[in-house]
Amino acid sequence: MNIKSQVLKIAQEAKKASYKLAQASTEDKNKALEKMANGLLKAKVALIKVNKQDLANARKKKLSSAFIDRLTLNEKRIEKMASDIRDVVKLENPVGTIIKTWKRPNGLLINKKRVPIGVIGIIYESRPNVTSDAASLCLKAGNAVILRGGSEAFNSNKKIAEILKSSLKGTAISEKAIQFIPTTDRKAIDELLKLNDYIDLIIPRGGEELIKKVTENSCIPVIKHYKGVCHVYVDRFAKIDMAMNICFNAKVQRPSVCNSMETMLVDEKIAKKFLPLMLKKFKSAGVEIRGDTETRKIMKDIKTANESDWYAEYLDLILAVKVVSDVDEAIEHINTYGTHLSDAIVTEDYSNAMKFLNEIDSATVYVNASTRFTDGGEFGLGAEIGISTDKIHARGPMGLEELTTYKYIVFGDGQVRK
Amino acid sequence: MNIKSQVLKIAQEAKKASYKLAQASTEDKNKALEKMANGLLKAKVALIKVNKQDLANARKKKLSSAFIDRLTLNEKRIEKMASDIRDVVKLENPVGTIIKTWKRPNGLLINKKRVPIGVIGIIYESRPNVTSDAASLCLKAGNAVILRGGSEAFNSNKKIAEILKSSLKGTAISEKAIQFIPTTDRKAIDELLKLNDYIDLIIPRGGEELIKKVTENSCIPVIKHYKGVCHVYVDRFAKIDMAMNICFNAKVQRPSVCNSMETMLVDEKIAKKFLPLMLKKFKSAGVEIRGDTETRKIMKDIKTANESDWYAEYLDLILAVKVVSDVDEAIEHINTYGTHLSDAIVTEDYSNAMKFLNEIDSATVYVNASTRFTDGGEFGLGAEIGISTDKIHARGPMGLEELTTYKYIVFGDGQVRK
Repeated sequence: MNIKSQVLKIAQEAKKASYKLAQASTEDKNKALEKMANGLLKAKVALIKVNKQDLANARKKKLSSAFIDRLTLNEKRIEKMASDIRDVVKLENPVGTIIKTWKRPNGLLINKKRVPIGVIGIIYESRPNVTSDAASLCLKAGNAVILRGGSEAFNSNKKIAEILKSSLKGTAISEKAIQFIPTTDRKAIDELLKLNDYIDLIIPRGGEELIKKVTENSCIPVIKHYKGVCHVYVDRFAKIDMAMNICFNAKVQRPSVCNSMETMLVDEKIAKKFLPLMLKKFKSAGVEIRGDTETRKIMKDIKTANESDWYAEYLDLILAVKVVSDVDEAIEHINTYGTHLSDAIVTEDYSNAMKFLNEIDSATVYVNASTRFTDGGEFGLGAEIGISTDKIHARGPMGLEELTTYKYIVFGDGQVRK
Repeated sequence: MNIKSQVLKIAQEAKKASYKLAQASTEDKNKALEKMANGLLKAKVALIKVNKQDLANARKKKLSSAFIDRLTLNEKRIEKMASDIRDVVKLENPVGTIIKTWKRPNGLLINKKRVPIGVIGIIYESRPNVTSDAASLCLKAGNAVILRGGSEAFNSNKKIAEILKSSLKGTAISEKAIQFIPTTDRKAIDELLKLNDYIDLIIPRGGEELIKKVTENSCIPVIKHYKGVCHVYVDRFAKIDMAMNICFNAKVQRPSVCNSMETMLVDEKIAKKFLPLMLKKFKSAGVEIRGDTETRKIMKDIKTANESDWYAEYLDLILAVKVVSDVDEAIEHINTYGTHLSDAIVTEDYSNAMKFLNEIDSATVYVNASTRFTDGGEFGLGAEIGISTDKIHARGPMGLEELTTYKYIVFGDGQVRK
């Protein structure tokens, strides 16, 4: 079978399975998830063996040790995958909720009901655990899933998908609700992105190049988890200690993730007092500082920030710093250069806080808290399938509810339109 | 200026204006809308004059009389455009509502707040009144709009946009919040669809070819108003009279619109009784019937329906008819051949009704009512910008709320992540 018909068959099977899965009870879905978790635990040895192939290939390709670390599956990590699935069991099933109900003058009773989306395609590059995370979240929200992982983790991803699918045998959920694209050929993605008759949503998770390729080529709606160029703005009315804590946390606690701070903006009225203390603390943590002209007037021994630094997602211990004249300039900078994901102001001034919250065009906006809280777990939504940088359908952390849509069910007694 | 830079400039201006518009009060927006309505009324004569150019061109191109009728602007139609804007004034402003609020154990107070989407591009082919409808709905929901109408109505659309923009002078709303693409060159659409840094959503309204082109080429999220292949299923437990009323209304009341019935499915247990009566009524209204084999056994003097008829959106007095063995076959047929827009069952049987409501994968599903009610006005949502056949973000009639998104605003007192 060529790739085109292979991918088509997978999508058609997923669509068919999605109709049945959409009707499944919470109990049936939870039982299936329990079996999936057990399946992973039982297959630990076999999975670690398969993972060793991917690791050997990665070493041959001389991939970085950080990359190889992310690729590695050991007992502990497989146990974590299983316990993550059990956490999904505990999440409330969003499907079937009546969001709104109203009666029309002609007697029609309209109900807006939460239902699964249908078939979701996940195209990812990251760790093999995305395979089980995505499959379990989609299943709990009543969606069939088509998984397409990165080539470096191909064998591990394939094995995980096989384990999950075979765990569904004997449950009320069809194994066809979890589909895996069994090839690393890039053509498979091109074919997948054309199948808008069978696939309802694509969620790409990975680097900029992947996201761009998917966005440009997809005929299916895409929800992107794109870059995170996040800011903390230290207002003239900030408490210095609080600002230092928040900025340090936003930059240093985990610099490799999308909700960490990349640019710090400082009100000129507080800069002379704040910057020497703050930058000393950053330096002691090994953070490289790149400052604008005003910053460098105060702190002479730092690198110069160029225009490109304001757009940069370092994902590393590097920080761009800019002195701004007031909250308005901060807002304009963030809306212009940011990626609209997670931005914070530190201030004791009510009006500046409210202005910032209202005018910053980002998925999550904070007063006096770290940008690092933009996360499904931290928001209390449970596990997340991603953090949307789009504005359509879902914004910010995407939990189970964001993996659903709605339909109108309307009860009549013979109404016709006049 | 070439088309590329022209379109880029328009998009950038719209983005800039959108930030200010997003903060506008309900009162300011309503005042601006009133001025827009007045502006149209004052410019009636000039607008009718400009419209005559489009009409002359259309006649030269020998476009159909139905097309020319849709293109025509007269006093009455301009007054209707103005009163439609005044209806938008009356609609509740969805912006600023707190959808949900909760407190986390660490003290963070999270608010999910409804906000405008930003910049919306409307690409349309239809009547010139879409120009004022789309502009007023987008404005009320706090969005800047970029309008790109069909070439046949170019002069009329341009004039309407000019009137609306100049009406905004002296109001709190910038004229730059309404943008019009002042060229009929198709390249402008290609350029527009690349500008995902400035445009947040594209809504195409028009024929299949336009929708396809936009979907395939857009880097910006698209919400489609696609075909409507709608069904009524007459169950064995239907009341014959009610079924006849509903089917007749769904087909005949306005056959040219997307929520009219295109295929009628009839349970074999009721077919012999129902079909002769129903088809007689349809024939008397001039409806051409195309039946499957079973239908033609009962009614011999009708045309044969081919496979392609099950996919057909006739938008005309033509109806495909199929006899099915039960509600399950009806559901499978509708989910396979339908466009997931508006489908109905007529039955007195509780279980069959609930099964149909649950399992039909459509934006709106009815028991004992006409498919024709799928409409923003009929749903009580007020004017609609379109009827989404997508599942992402909005499904079915799209009112003001569907022209908004949300953001999380989070109040802290120094929280950092552990």
